[in-house]
Amino acid sequence: MANQQPLRVALVGLGTVGSGVAKILLENSEHIKQRAGREIEIVSAIVRDPTKTRNVKLPEGILATSFDLIEAPEVDVVCELIGGTTTAGDIVRQGLTANKHVVTANKALLCEQGDELFQLAQQNGKTICFEAAVAGGVPVIDGVAQSLAANKIQSIKAILNGTSNYILTEMLDHNTSYEDAVSKAQDKGYAEADPKMDVDGTDAAQKLTILAQLAFGTKASLSDFPRQGIDELNLADLKYADELGYRVKLLAIARRNNGFLELHTQPTLIRKNLPMAAVYDAYNMIEVEGDAVGKTWFAGMGAGQMPTASAVVSDLIDLAVGRAQQTFPLLDLWGQSEPLPILPAEKIERKYYLRFHAFDQPGTISSIATILGNHGISIASCIQHDFEIQSGGSAASVVPFVVMTHATTEGQMRAADEELANCNAIQPDYLRLPIQG
Amino acid sequence: MANQQPLRVALVGLGTVGSGVAKILLENSEHIKQRAGREIEIVSAIVRDPTKTRNVKLPEGILATSFDLIEAPEVDVVCELIGGTTTAGDIVRQGLTANKHVVTANKALLCEQGDELFQLAQQNGKTICFEAAVAGGVPVIDGVAQSLAANKIQSIKAILNGTSNYILTEMLDHNTSYEDAVSKAQDKGYAEADPKMDVDGTDAAQKLTILAQLAFGTKASLSDFPRQGIDELNLADLKYADELGYRVKLLAIARRNNGFLELHTQPTLIRKNLPMAAVYDAYNMIEVEGDAVGKTWFAGMGAGQMPTASAVVSDLIDLAVGRAQQTFPLLDLWGQSEPLPILPAEKIERKYYLRFHAFDQPGTISSIATILGNHGISIASCIQHDFEIQSGGSAASVVPFVVMTHATTEGQMRAADEELANCNAIQPDYLRLPIQG
Repeated sequence: MANQQPLRVALVGLGTVGSGVAKILLENSEHIKQRAGREIEIVSAIVRDPTKTRNVKLPEGILATSFDLIEAPEVDVVCELIGGTTTAGDIVRQGLTANKHVVTANKALLCEQGDELFQLAQQNGKTICFEAAVAGGVPVIDGVAQSLAANKIQSIKAILNGTSNYILTEMLDHNTSYEDAVSKAQDKGYAEADPKMDVDGTDAAQKLTILAQLAFGTKASLSDFPRQGIDELNLADLKYADELGYRVKLLAIARRNNGFLELHTQPTLIRKNLPMAAVYDAYNMIEVEGDAVGKTWFAGMGAGQMPTASAVVSDLIDLAVGRAQQTFPLLDLWGQSEPLPILPAEKIERKYYLRFHAFDQPGTISSIATILGNHGISIASCIQHDFEIQSGGSAASVVPFVVMTHATTEGQMRAADEELANCNAIQPDYLRLPIQG
Repeated sequence: MANQQPLRVALVGLGTVGSGVAKILLENSEHIKQRAGREIEIVSAIVRDPTKTRNVKLPEGILATSFDLIEAPEVDVVCELIGGTTTAGDIVRQGLTANKHVVTANKALLCEQGDELFQLAQQNGKTICFEAAVAGGVPVIDGVAQSLAANKIQSIKAILNGTSNYILTEMLDHNTSYEDAVSKAQDKGYAEADPKMDVDGTDAAQKLTILAQLAFGTKASLSDFPRQGIDELNLADLKYADELGYRVKLLAIARRNNGFLELHTQPTLIRKNLPMAAVYDAYNMIEVEGDAVGKTWFAGMGAGQMPTASAVVSDLIDLAVGRAQQTFPLLDLWGQSEPLPILPAEKIERKYYLRFHAFDQPGTISSIATILGNHGISIASCIQHDFEIQSGGSAASVVPFVVMTHATTEGQMRAADEELANCNAIQPDYLRLPIQG
């Protein structure tokens, strides 16, 4: 290779991922130089608090606090790793406007402002790399953007939130309540002190919008499609599913459906013999189906310091080699082709798992069956075991009652939901989950 | 994008994969133009027999029989899809010498002559793309060469032969003998009339040498490492493994081991709870472990017309965009870095599954245990069920006897093998398989 200039990086943020990136660049510099064809040099590491102790030893003189260093002429790439969307958005805009490429691991930012940022990058002839924003170390962005480029993508089905997957694994494998599994996830560093964004499906849904834009050119916001978290599930639900031959996973799906794009992120029953059902602990898996290649799977750690840093550094290598700059303008991020419109939620058609806590009295099952029948929802199977559960303060005893439906639309289900909410035979904690495969 | 010239391809071979490639290029031309930034045009399709009926309709005038058309000035890329190694090697050399890039799906060619061909490409400043040569539609070459470039690869463990995996799945799931499962694989088009190269481990071992060169810079030939096929296995072995908590898979492994590269391709017992154990039918899976990213998995169809054609066309798109030309010179295919030396087979250390057909007479188990003990091989567990099997013509009755060992070296096992071969207490069909995880 010709003796090229180093690729010069301004690292913004030295938290978990930022210090992981610095670590790889500093400790693996020889290996990276070989794979990148030139050195990748950190010229500044910009942080809010320079006095904080960090677990990486930076070269003298590069730690700084002024975001304006982003614009310095010696910077080629801005690596945004501070998280959040306000300052992070400003940093990315500032970088692009100053003619720098951008690497980011920030899915919330891309979900919220990706459209604007991608446009700005295109106008400035610059590149945004975001492999680390979806599924951490798993190279699914490369997969969709490049390796499977010969294919029209038919569907993406993905386990994108490691925290939720860890909690679900822990509950079923160790007979643990939802609350205890959350605590354990926090102890292990998989869940934040406030795990809301993980367990309510927001994080997975944000990643899904990025994949949907990349694979189908469709810009969706979180309010455009059904989203449900694992925070309504009981251990008992995982056990009923097990009994019926399924695992419950927080599954994000984007798929072509008669000229529309079907989108949703929900805890979903998956047949045990399918590969997605076998994903355990904090791992992520993405199933990408192409018209030529059929189904392919990508799996690995979707979060954590070094897996995420691995994706960021791979993006920097792509920029150093020059590949990323060639690939970015060809991605379907600006609606060059007519984007697939989003299928209205009411028209999504699936089978469902319904779990009721029903009062143990004559006519209960008949009431439920009647409501379902009135909305054209056909029952495929049901389970009622002969035991009572704690009735949450009610005087009457309560029994769990589980129904599996035949395929029906979300619209029919929502209409039935309203009527079920007014049904005196059941408690209000009625749970509805879609079934896959 | 600037209005660029098409990328002009000479397609050599219009068999299964070749006609799949033509199909994608002709039927998906708009999609491909968008992802490639320019058209990809077939300027000639060179075949041995132009009168043969083919299931793809080519444009007028491009079907030809002269290999010299490879050298035509209007050709940018030679796509070698005729298979075999003699003519295929000549075609690749002819193309590179005439300053054409090469795309090939030919693992046997790269295993046998890759070293010479990669050198020739480098001398001529041209690129060889070979995504389709390993694991068909699964983008593991891209993964190792590019997406995981931030990592020093620690190990690659892979199911690379779909035919063997189909046969093993069929045997266990449907209680089918090896011979019947082979017939069924042939009926389904997964196995050739002569399935030797698939079932004796050659195909998987060839693919492993390509991955080993790419990930570790090590050039291995098939005689350099242990190779064993599935053709010695009985249904009973799969059942014993199942009983012990394992699945048997034809597993190809390359891993760093104290400054050496450990290499082998063998039917291997894998713990049922590991992702590799869940790979069914003709699917391939590759587990790549990097120092930063940890374990990642790539899976999908490793063979078949359209999956393989998908990989070939993705390589053509990489060439059209210009990425492949940038990546190829940076790959570790010429021993730029000191390649890892191959660990001598005798030093490979693993646990083993040993299955004996032992004569049902006093002292048999003691004889086996004594031989193992004499070679420092320690028994972890054993199974002997109370039933007899067909003794293959011998007068005495014969019972299966299964031993699981503690970790021991291949060298110790080979020494024990010699003595076991002379042991009168067992039949000569003694089977030894390594255990993983």
